[in-house]
Amino acid sequence: MDFSAQFEHYRLQVERGLDELTPPAGTRPARLHEAMRYSLLAGGKRLRPVLVLAAADLFAAAGLDPQSKIHDPRPAQSTGSGRSVDPLAAAVAVECIHTYSLIHDDLPCMDNDDLRRGRPTAHKQFDEATALLAGDALLTLAFQLLGRHYAEHPALCAALARAIADAAGSEKLIGGQMADLLAEKKSNATAGELEYIHLNKTAAMLSVSLVAGGLCGGATATQLAALHDTGRHLGLAFQIMDDILDATADTATLGKTAGKDAKAGKTTYVSLHGLEASRKFSRQHTEAAIAALAALPGDQSFLRVLIESMAVRSN
Amino acid sequence: MDFSAQFEHYRLQVERGLDELTPPAGTRPARLHEAMRYSLLAGGKRLRPVLVLAAADLFAAAGLDPQSKIHDPRPAQSTGSGRSVDPLAAAVAVECIHTYSLIHDDLPCMDNDDLRRGRPTAHKQFDEATALLAGDALLTLAFQLLGRHYAEHPALCAALARAIADAAGSEKLIGGQMADLLAEKKSNATAGELEYIHLNKTAAMLSVSLVAGGLCGGATATQLAALHDTGRHLGLAFQIMDDILDATADTATLGKTAGKDAKAGKTTYVSLHGLEASRKFSRQHTEAAIAALAALPGDQSFLRVLIESMAVRSN
Repeated sequence: MDFSAQFEHYRLQVERGLDELTPPAGTRPARLHEAMRYSLLAGGKRLRPVLVLAAADLFAAAGLDPQSKIHDPRPAQSTGSGRSVDPLAAAVAVECIHTYSLIHDDLPCMDNDDLRRGRPTAHKQFDEATALLAGDALLTLAFQLLGRHYAEHPALCAALARAIADAAGSEKLIGGQMADLLAEKKSNATAGELEYIHLNKTAAMLSVSLVAGGLCGGATATQLAALHDTGRHLGLAFQIMDDILDATADTATLGKTAGKDAKAGKTTYVSLHGLEASRKFSRQHTEAAIAALAALPGDQSFLRVLIESMAVRSN
Repeated sequence: MDFSAQFEHYRLQVERGLDELTPPAGTRPARLHEAMRYSLLAGGKRLRPVLVLAAADLFAAAGLDPQSKIHDPRPAQSTGSGRSVDPLAAAVAVECIHTYSLIHDDLPCMDNDDLRRGRPTAHKQFDEATALLAGDALLTLAFQLLGRHYAEHPALCAALARAIADAAGSEKLIGGQMADLLAEKKSNATAGELEYIHLNKTAAMLSVSLVAGGLCGGATATQLAALHDTGRHLGLAFQIMDDILDATADTATLGKTAGKDAKAGKTTYVSLHGLEASRKFSRQHTEAAIAALAALPGDQSFLRVLIESMAVRSN
């Protein structure tokens, strides 16, 4: 497996999906759709939607080459409990939710950040009200996309909507943001509070990305649990690495303001445990994420390398 | 039919649903859930969720008295294309979306309003960041509720999620808010722009409330179209009346700041067409809403009186 080529293959699918499945530029209300596309098509790693596509491929036996389906050596039971359905709309939905959370997180009343992916944040490029509404609209669009593209598979549509809404809800993604906000204010969060933030603010959406791919692929309940577990550990590894990078990288490399956490006196893995212990924790969660993959069918090499690459990334 | 008793019956069901189906006070993250409940349980007319319940009852033959089901004189085909499912979660979902839109609309970067339903707005009672996240969480909760409570009816769940997400999306509710915002800035909106705002900011969610009830009741496509049309005219009548009330009522009666539109130099039906013509338009849409009811089965008297009451309300 050529990891870079496969990642690029998935990433291009995602970029195409983001462009084609979301409201076209110029359609009414033009300014709102422009702001949505500005943030959505700003590049970025596309980690979450790539996870959706890669997880689905574990079950669907699809790859770079359509021929590979015919010659796939995996046993029939590897396709799980149901048939495989195109996961692209689910991947785009997940990225819509991720992008909305970044737009709202960057607002003056939240992190008040001016830079995102090396460009002005949405409220800097447009204005606060437009950024607020663009975020709201992207969150809503996620469920519009599920409803529209999985209408012929209502059980899948309902399962995707429920899993994604729960992961994005007050007890997961938004709960993590709320706790993060309160932690920033008091500047002395405990290790338990920090893990709560990372589990909910980051890991929940990574888990549900893998789960959404599994649902499209027809995964069994056991397989969905393994996908969820993979995402949980990947999320913790990812977020610990984010804390490390904020403390060690520069703004140009990061594509967003560096050193922000320390400047704000914010509790991070690095401030709580130091750089070396944080690196160790990140490594342990990376290994646990890879171990959880073992319960899954298909060729896990892409996901394995992807997870490993998170632990050595520079942005 | 005793309209007031029936309305109160529905309203109490809604209040119970809002209390019981949403995250309990004190559960983590406590401040976020407190803010969600503060706005959600602040009273209000509950017009949208009552429409959901009343529309479902057209098909379900359910009423104040469980006995009425047995003695229902309506022909069998009046139950439409499917069986009837409890519409309460859909009603709560719709009210969650309405409440989120009010919270975000009240924020300083939007309408910057201090009063809502006679109490401090969410960002005044808590803070901007908490209000922002509480709004996000209520929007997300709508889809969590649909996923959770209609899991055994996946086709219904998918149809509800799609209809509600579309009505709340960038081309409807949020599009209306965006257009409203831009119209405020330029202070010379045309009649067409004003109708676009009202159709999307108000009528879309009223329409989908009736449609959601119809979906739970198993309405046919024709019946769903009639419900949608009823909501469209009701929405226009309602919003024109809102413009009239802003120009004529006082803050105490209204429960929110009165005279705001004129003060802001905002284009309204009243500023465009005058008070008398606005009253006439409101009346015409009220009549059209009632006429659209005729295509529906069951006893339409409750909905008819409800629609008429909108045209003579004082807040």
